[in-house]
Amino acid sequence: MKNDLIINFTPTGMIPTKEMTPHVPVIVSEIVEDVHAACEIGITMVHLHARDAVTGVPTYKKEVYADIIAGIRKYAPELVICVSLSGRDFSEFEKRSDALLLDGDLKPDMGSLTLSSLNFNKTASVNAPDMVFNLAAKMKEKGIVPELEAFDIGMINYAKYLERKKVLQAPYYFNLLFGNIACSQANLLHSGVMINDLPENSFWSLAGIGNEQLKMNSLSIAVGGGVRVGIEDNIWFDAERTKLTTNSELLERVHLIANANGRGVMTPKDFRKKMNLEPGNGSYGRKFK
Amino acid sequence: MKNDLIINFTPTGMIPTKEMTPHVPVIVSEIVEDVHAACEIGITMVHLHARDAVTGVPTYKKEVYADIIAGIRKYAPELVICVSLSGRDFSEFEKRSDALLLDGDLKPDMGSLTLSSLNFNKTASVNAPDMVFNLAAKMKEKGIVPELEAFDIGMINYAKYLERKKVLQAPYYFNLLFGNIACSQANLLHSGVMINDLPENSFWSLAGIGNEQLKMNSLSIAVGGGVRVGIEDNIWFDAERTKLTTNSELLERVHLIANANGRGVMTPKDFRKKMNLEPGNGSYGRKFK
Repeated sequence: MKNDLIINFTPTGMIPTKEMTPHVPVIVSEIVEDVHAACEIGITMVHLHARDAVTGVPTYKKEVYADIIAGIRKYAPELVICVSLSGRDFSEFEKRSDALLLDGDLKPDMGSLTLSSLNFNKTASVNAPDMVFNLAAKMKEKGIVPELEAFDIGMINYAKYLERKKVLQAPYYFNLLFGNIACSQANLLHSGVMINDLPENSFWSLAGIGNEQLKMNSLSIAVGGGVRVGIEDNIWFDAERTKLTTNSELLERVHLIANANGRGVMTPKDFRKKMNLEPGNGSYGRKFK
Repeated sequence: MKNDLIINFTPTGMIPTKEMTPHVPVIVSEIVEDVHAACEIGITMVHLHARDAVTGVPTYKKEVYADIIAGIRKYAPELVICVSLSGRDFSEFEKRSDALLLDGDLKPDMGSLTLSSLNFNKTASVNAPDMVFNLAAKMKEKGIVPELEAFDIGMINYAKYLERKKVLQAPYYFNLLFGNIACSQANLLHSGVMINDLPENSFWSLAGIGNEQLKMNSLSIAVGGGVRVGIEDNIWFDAERTKLTTNSELLERVHLIANANGRGVMTPKDFRKKMNLEPGNGSYGRKFK
């Protein structure tokens, strides 16, 4: 068994509501509880989205992220924690970068960085070049590592551009996301091109939207990549959509497939070493800038 | 000699200024003159951008497009004319669709339709899903054919989605554009995937930004595609950027390469037949909706 499978756990996201599925963790205690359960099953990192406790809608506020991070670290001080800097609901730099201001025991190890503008199903997600650059620069300044989000092949080229501009630094971690209607699709050709295009010294996970999550997770396990998995991208357990899934059920299935493929989960400790992150347990973010 | 090469002539664009190159046609008479010269050399269609006569900045106004179209058709009544509906400088639907209101002898045959949001070098180009849908629907209503602009692989998937929604109808014409920093790059892998992904019954041209124009035009000639060529994408004649080009020089080079490859230009008349366009010469746009 080779323990090299990065499992990037995405419990919440911005879209699923309690009306869509009772299993989505929304308030701080629910998210913390789901992450604790995930650690028991085995994950490498968690990709967090915060929600307003009263309304359940996405919030950028560092205070909410602080509560979630504190709750997770009390139990799992080594887990690699990534906060969302999404512009899907917030356009101002100050809001999008708010969670990067957390420090000490509350400092996130990583922050999400979508590498260009794109369309989701119903809305445009605007990440103008200066916004992408400024978020990357702020993370570099704070010693926080970007989780690079690529929805299409051009976004990987933009990461290489930011590398040339010295605002991104290897080693990298990429989420390659497939199956959005106006983005790269969940097939071998598109994923093959994107993996082929990645810069040197990149770790990567494959993600699929909705029914495509299982396919992309499974093929990534087969070819040596990591997986991004959780209710954020997919609320159903089965392709026929007869059964709403829990986060634990999704994780257990990934472990089942991974084990049968001779792959075990990469520990947060190992991932920290590979990504030049501090060891956790009191010290977070990138070791040197 | 097979006369099957679509030459889509892009004389002006939104970016080149007289300060950048004296050869860019900006005012109506200059654009008309460049298009007339291009017809003498041999082109299939023209992709127009209008500029304000006084300031030289891009304008959406149908009155300016009307002047350009009238000037072109006086001399070349069959040439297939496409107007820009770009959102790069104008975000409102009413502005972006203004040129679609032209009718009779002034009716454009085609209108450009960028299939998603994307980033250019310095700015986001926002084409939200409802905007793309509404522009396509307006064109369908008016019997104007979309010139489908795809900057990355996901945009082709979105065209297929619009086909399923019955707002797009074959036969299609695509521009596949390569070399923008956050989009698909000017190489065989990216262009091969995009060509492979095109829906049935699609005509297509390859475009490259700046120095990549010659490469993408030349490889498209080699593999049986069309070319998008002109100062809009590229102001230099040579890769070393020692000589600013005229539109005619770019077109003459394309003809030279095409002829050596045994390919001649597709006439506007032939392209009209293949795209189900009216014959021109008094009757424009798509024959049936």
